[in-house]
Amino acid sequence: MTANATKRQFLRSVGGAAGAAAVYRAMDALGMLGPGEAQASALDLPPGSGAGKSVVVLGAGVSGMAAAYELSKAGYGCTVLEATARAGGRNLTARAGDAIEETDSRQTVCYDDADHLYANLGPARIPYHHRTVLGYCREFGVDLEVFTNDNRAALFHNEGRFGGRPVAARRVMTDLRGYIAELLAKAVNREALDDVLGAEDKERILDMLVRFGALEEKDLLYKGSNRGGYRDAPNAGLLAGEANDPLDFGELLRADFWRYKLHFSHFLNQNPTLFQPVGGMDAIPRAFEARVGRSIRYSSPVREIRKTSGGVRVVHADGPGGDLKAVEADFAVCAVPATVLKDIPNDFSPETRAAIEGVEFVEAVKVGFQARRRFWEEDAAIYGGISWTDRDITQIWYPSQGYHRAKGVVMGAYIWDKEPGLRFTAMSPADRLDAAVAEGERLHPGYGKEMECGVSRAWLKAPFQKGGWPRGYEPPEALRRPDGAIHFAGDQVTALPGWQEGAVLAAHAAVDAIHRRAAGSGG
Amino acid sequence: MTANATKRQFLRSVGGAAGAAAVYRAMDALGMLGPGEAQASALDLPPGSGAGKSVVVLGAGVSGMAAAYELSKAGYGCTVLEATARAGGRNLTARAGDAIEETDSRQTVCYDDADHLYANLGPARIPYHHRTVLGYCREFGVDLEVFTNDNRAALFHNEGRFGGRPVAARRVMTDLRGYIAELLAKAVNREALDDVLGAEDKERILDMLVRFGALEEKDLLYKGSNRGGYRDAPNAGLLAGEANDPLDFGELLRADFWRYKLHFSHFLNQNPTLFQPVGGMDAIPRAFEARVGRSIRYSSPVREIRKTSGGVRVVHADGPGGDLKAVEADFAVCAVPATVLKDIPNDFSPETRAAIEGVEFVEAVKVGFQARRRFWEEDAAIYGGISWTDRDITQIWYPSQGYHRAKGVVMGAYIWDKEPGLRFTAMSPADRLDAAVAEGERLHPGYGKEMECGVSRAWLKAPFQKGGWPRGYEPPEALRRPDGAIHFAGDQVTALPGWQEGAVLAAHAAVDAIHRRAAGSGG
Repeated sequence: MTANATKRQFLRSVGGAAGAAAVYRAMDALGMLGPGEAQASALDLPPGSGAGKSVVVLGAGVSGMAAAYELSKAGYGCTVLEATARAGGRNLTARAGDAIEETDSRQTVCYDDADHLYANLGPARIPYHHRTVLGYCREFGVDLEVFTNDNRAALFHNEGRFGGRPVAARRVMTDLRGYIAELLAKAVNREALDDVLGAEDKERILDMLVRFGALEEKDLLYKGSNRGGYRDAPNAGLLAGEANDPLDFGELLRADFWRYKLHFSHFLNQNPTLFQPVGGMDAIPRAFEARVGRSIRYSSPVREIRKTSGGVRVVHADGPGGDLKAVEADFAVCAVPATVLKDIPNDFSPETRAAIEGVEFVEAVKVGFQARRRFWEEDAAIYGGISWTDRDITQIWYPSQGYHRAKGVVMGAYIWDKEPGLRFTAMSPADRLDAAVAEGERLHPGYGKEMECGVSRAWLKAPFQKGGWPRGYEPPEALRRPDGAIHFAGDQVTALPGWQEGAVLAAHAAVDAIHRRAAGSGG
Repeated sequence: MTANATKRQFLRSVGGAAGAAAVYRAMDALGMLGPGEAQASALDLPPGSGAGKSVVVLGAGVSGMAAAYELSKAGYGCTVLEATARAGGRNLTARAGDAIEETDSRQTVCYDDADHLYANLGPARIPYHHRTVLGYCREFGVDLEVFTNDNRAALFHNEGRFGGRPVAARRVMTDLRGYIAELLAKAVNREALDDVLGAEDKERILDMLVRFGALEEKDLLYKGSNRGGYRDAPNAGLLAGEANDPLDFGELLRADFWRYKLHFSHFLNQNPTLFQPVGGMDAIPRAFEARVGRSIRYSSPVREIRKTSGGVRVVHADGPGGDLKAVEADFAVCAVPATVLKDIPNDFSPETRAAIEGVEFVEAVKVGFQARRRFWEEDAAIYGGISWTDRDITQIWYPSQGYHRAKGVVMGAYIWDKEPGLRFTAMSPADRLDAAVAEGERLHPGYGKEMECGVSRAWLKAPFQKGGWPRGYEPPEALRRPDGAIHFAGDQVTALPGWQEGAVLAAHAAVDAIHRRAAGSGG
């Protein structure tokens, strides 16, 4: 069989029975799946359509740079004002020697200099359906690798339950499904649901529950399952061994696992498959910066935003404590976080101001430790993924890079709830490390001894950021339309706060609106 | 804060409140998790302990080579007899130009020559808890990357349900959980389970079900959820959009998804995290071969196995159709598949012969297509993972390597059930491709046009293999003990048939038994 013969066969088999039904199926399948269309939303402005028009972009984060990139491709003259000395905004990867500045501290990243020893202190994962960010990764040649979010070997820990011992995710999931299935099977057999189930469905439901919950076929009871692992080792070996005893149902109900954590991978943005760029998330802003860096004025914080008769006038400092300069432009794309924007003198409308004032940012904190040994892999067979605890640190992330290599950077805390977030934000960097180690010990006895050093980021104290991402999922209407010539951007104007996909979609929306206005077809 | 200061702080925080309780917790946690111990089962024979002793190893697959590697390290004189011209056995990675031989056909692999264009026609994934195989990967420096098994964007397809249209996994999972939760909540509220649930537990269960199933809080009904994705695009964007309507429950119950497929990632060996070696699964046998290759006699099929007073005598052909030669040794490790072994003249005991005769191998078939375009990524946002169908092809695997690159190799069929396995086995390679394309069209309209060429492997027709792996999960007792000086190996003597972990654990067991006999403490 040659390749050409095979090709002919394929064309035959496709050309054959296909016809209108196949075309309908194709369209229907695509409509049902959708992402094809989402990808088509990528901007494609006519080259040169922006010639002679100017845009000032506020903020060289992912949103601002995406806007500048698309505008520049269409011929707009762009100036990007970036408050800090660095592009990327909240997309921040910490590596050996980097400075992490907060309003009241300065840390130098202590990690060894190796390509797998980094911490993504801002965004750290890209879901498969974030088509626009993934489209840029493809276009820019940003190499991706799987980010492991859902690892069944990772741990659930609740200080007050199961004697304070962490339990492997696979056991919690298996046992909860087992108990749910057993209870529902019982109710079905007691005829408690006869009015809503036909006789045929009853049989099917029981059959389904046996498989869903790994029930015993004969009595429909849940007595544990090897899905949760074996007693002495997680896997079978020469012989199958004995399955773990099921966890106590009452304890499971009293633990907080099912409130959120247990269903984490079912939330759309946490669904596998997820990705991270090889070598650090900042590969994305670096790729943008390589394309629009010449337009960026670094260390140029915005001091004033004014509407003019012809567009917009933005005053900024020229370097830290430098003279003031002004940029006049036909349009502005403002990707400054609302938490910072609200304190910049402006002449926005009252509606715009109220909307900006109303955006609250999450008190996100991350702590990244360098471990001398990948004890989570070596001792516990945990490769990537996330363990959960009801302690302040909330999560421990095991690195999705450098498997089996020497050392590793563990995210020893990822906090977004208000109270623990504020507690960690208030601490000195050194105290955060101590606190995160003490809590990590509850999941991994000996944890502290394995950690060589660490670095933290409390986003509330990050200059020119003042928070992690907008709390709440409906962006204020007033920020989704322009105020004069000023178009707002950033994840804060989308239903994807805290996600880079929101940042680039917002940039596209702003650019598209500017394009329509510049072309005279809009307001 | 310097790295040294941080280290001191860690030591302080660990040294502090730790004490006996922490030690107990550490031991308990390890005992609960287990894999530490499993890893410790790696062999560590005293160097030189095998000096002057000889072993003939039958079969240079993963099991045989692992045995030879461990025996050689301990000083045993090893001869490995391999029937084919190639080491690796069922671990087979197909790349450009390779020959795939079956009893009645010969295919040349048509893929382009690129590092991501290969098909693992044998084993293709390594679960995190297969500690011994992973230990070898670590020892040998075999680079690993995540194998994506559970992808919520992948498809479920049942020809007779949902109009024959495939449905995204996230929708099936979300909706089934929703309906289960709704039914159980109803039963709880109808007091149908009051005898088994306390009042307090009832409240907790309802609360849990709301979150488990994404029920409406006010009426505990399932009305669909954005966990399953949005109507026009899977993700939220500038605004959240509308969630998909839930799939019909009756159709869900009548589809076969829940019989097995829906719970796939909950089966222990399919649990995330899983791995594949970068560049192809045969990196593992290649690493072994680099260490024991000098002991291997290739193209040397075994013709006769006889016990002798001092050990064992094995007659083999010297090359294809070559003269017969004999190897005498103190011991044998026999890793020949039972399906082949049963036809080699021997003087095994009746129990051994009966056990060998009783092992049935699965009629596994794989078909690997090279696609001109990664349409699953570009059109459907499917990155890695597995779609399921009730058609013969059973599964379509999207590659876990080469994301966003040009072209890709898709596993267009992975069949292990007897009937479809026999149907595909009986076909010519060209007919298998046609059949797999026709069925793939049902999941991805236009599929055939995207495929440039393909290659298939029906393991039943693989010379010196005659099947995929043993059906059933309890190895026969007679193969778990030696017959004279002959120790049996391969996944076939373990509770992990079809897994390389079984192959290496069997090798270790055989080596350990030989070591104990050679040391005079057994036998």
